[in-house]
Amino acid sequence: MEYYVYGRNNVTELLKDGSRSISKIILMKGQNNNAKFAQIISLAKERGIIFQFLPKEKFNQFGEISHQGVIAYTPPVKFVEFEDFINNKNEEKKYRKIIILDGIEDPNNFGSIIRTAVCAGFDALIFPSRRNASVNAAVEKSSAGAVNHIDLIMVNSLTAIIDRLKDNDFWIIATDINAKDNYYDIDYCNMNFAIVLGAEKDGISTAILKKSDFKIKIPMLNNFNSLNVANAASIVIYEALKQTIQKTGNVV
Amino acid sequence: MEYYVYGRNNVTELLKDGSRSISKIILMKGQNNNAKFAQIISLAKERGIIFQFLPKEKFNQFGEISHQGVIAYTPPVKFVEFEDFINNKNEEKKYRKIIILDGIEDPNNFGSIIRTAVCAGFDALIFPSRRNASVNAAVEKSSAGAVNHIDLIMVNSLTAIIDRLKDNDFWIIATDINAKDNYYDIDYCNMNFAIVLGAEKDGISTAILKKSDFKIKIPMLNNFNSLNVANAASIVIYEALKQTIQKTGNVV
Repeated sequence: MEYYVYGRNNVTELLKDGSRSISKIILMKGQNNNAKFAQIISLAKERGIIFQFLPKEKFNQFGEISHQGVIAYTPPVKFVEFEDFINNKNEEKKYRKIIILDGIEDPNNFGSIIRTAVCAGFDALIFPSRRNASVNAAVEKSSAGAVNHIDLIMVNSLTAIIDRLKDNDFWIIATDINAKDNYYDIDYCNMNFAIVLGAEKDGISTAILKKSDFKIKIPMLNNFNSLNVANAASIVIYEALKQTIQKTGNVV
Repeated sequence: MEYYVYGRNNVTELLKDGSRSISKIILMKGQNNNAKFAQIISLAKERGIIFQFLPKEKFNQFGEISHQGVIAYTPPVKFVEFEDFINNKNEEKKYRKIIILDGIEDPNNFGSIIRTAVCAGFDALIFPSRRNASVNAAVEKSSAGAVNHIDLIMVNSLTAIIDRLKDNDFWIIATDINAKDNYYDIDYCNMNFAIVLGAEKDGISTAILKKSDFKIKIPMLNNFNSLNVANAASIVIYEALKQTIQKTGNVV
């Protein structure tokens, strides 16, 4: 079956980005007054992309997805090769910030973390080919189109990649419920770093914890140790951005 | 139809909390080796609650929910009256911290914000009876049982409640994409405060913005102004907790 993505913000970002070809956009009839629809149509016209209006019934084929009346046929996101990422450094950026996911299974969490990483100006997101959701249409939807604005790197072995990152002057920061330091106790400035986030259930694997330079935790009260992983990610990602802005006056 | 809640962590928290009666728990057959199941059974035995194992097919009646093989029949969450919240102050707490939601429609976002608020030790969450998701089983699931650990207050008029909060020495902090101050520029310590979070689409209503004492924004890069509201909530909520811990050495 042809690959497609869905959702109003998601398709808008896909159109704005321009790096992926779009063979066709379909829109649900009867939503002509919708501002998001108008924007999608205007962007599609600009890029010369075919769009058509279909009645509600035609959307049943897509099942129980939150398409919001918009589907765009496009190839899946292209992943970036790890070594290409390492070698192609944007010279304007002094340091690079990345996220490593170790076994995030929920597509909403995965997409939501990509979205926060883009909002905070992170450069890449690395995830393993096994034991982790891949970048499918549900992840794209949850990312609100952020998948188009960051290097997504799928790798076979996270531990091997962490070694390569360390070879390349990256510091590895692992989130771990048993850590001594709180996430705001470390200094995120003036270094390349990778924040590692663990699986919803089991956290980060021992092999990766061992290779980490810093272990950090998020304090939790009420004996309720159960922040959602995407929310936990946002808290740490924004602490890093905030420190960079406050201490260096820059965002990179 | 009888009200029920679902999900492993959610039902575990419901059992641990003990404030809501549970008429019956049903578990999916064939998951006997699951540690979460064992914990649920042990807690149910402790409280003398009936539980039974049913085959997979019996769970079809619940439709497409992420029940993870566990359903608990219990009455809906009891809301707290605003005036009771105001009058029943826990004397151990010097200041109180609350969240106000202005039109959060997505149950995942709603539940997820409740979860973060509990992890960060917030005292209450106020939401309007209209234009906002109510606390249903989907919200309970996303909250991972956090609904049982915080005062949930449903009100008819947010603006009237904000006036009452101001009468009672609360400062109102509104998140607003057009604010001048960043969320980390203000001091959350030594005051009662309410953080107001706006609807996924439209943000906070003008009437509420006008009544706010502080307006704050979260900086976003990449021209990508679209943090998920639950993630945005986590970032601000944890900045407040962090400041309190760092500046006062306490969590309240």
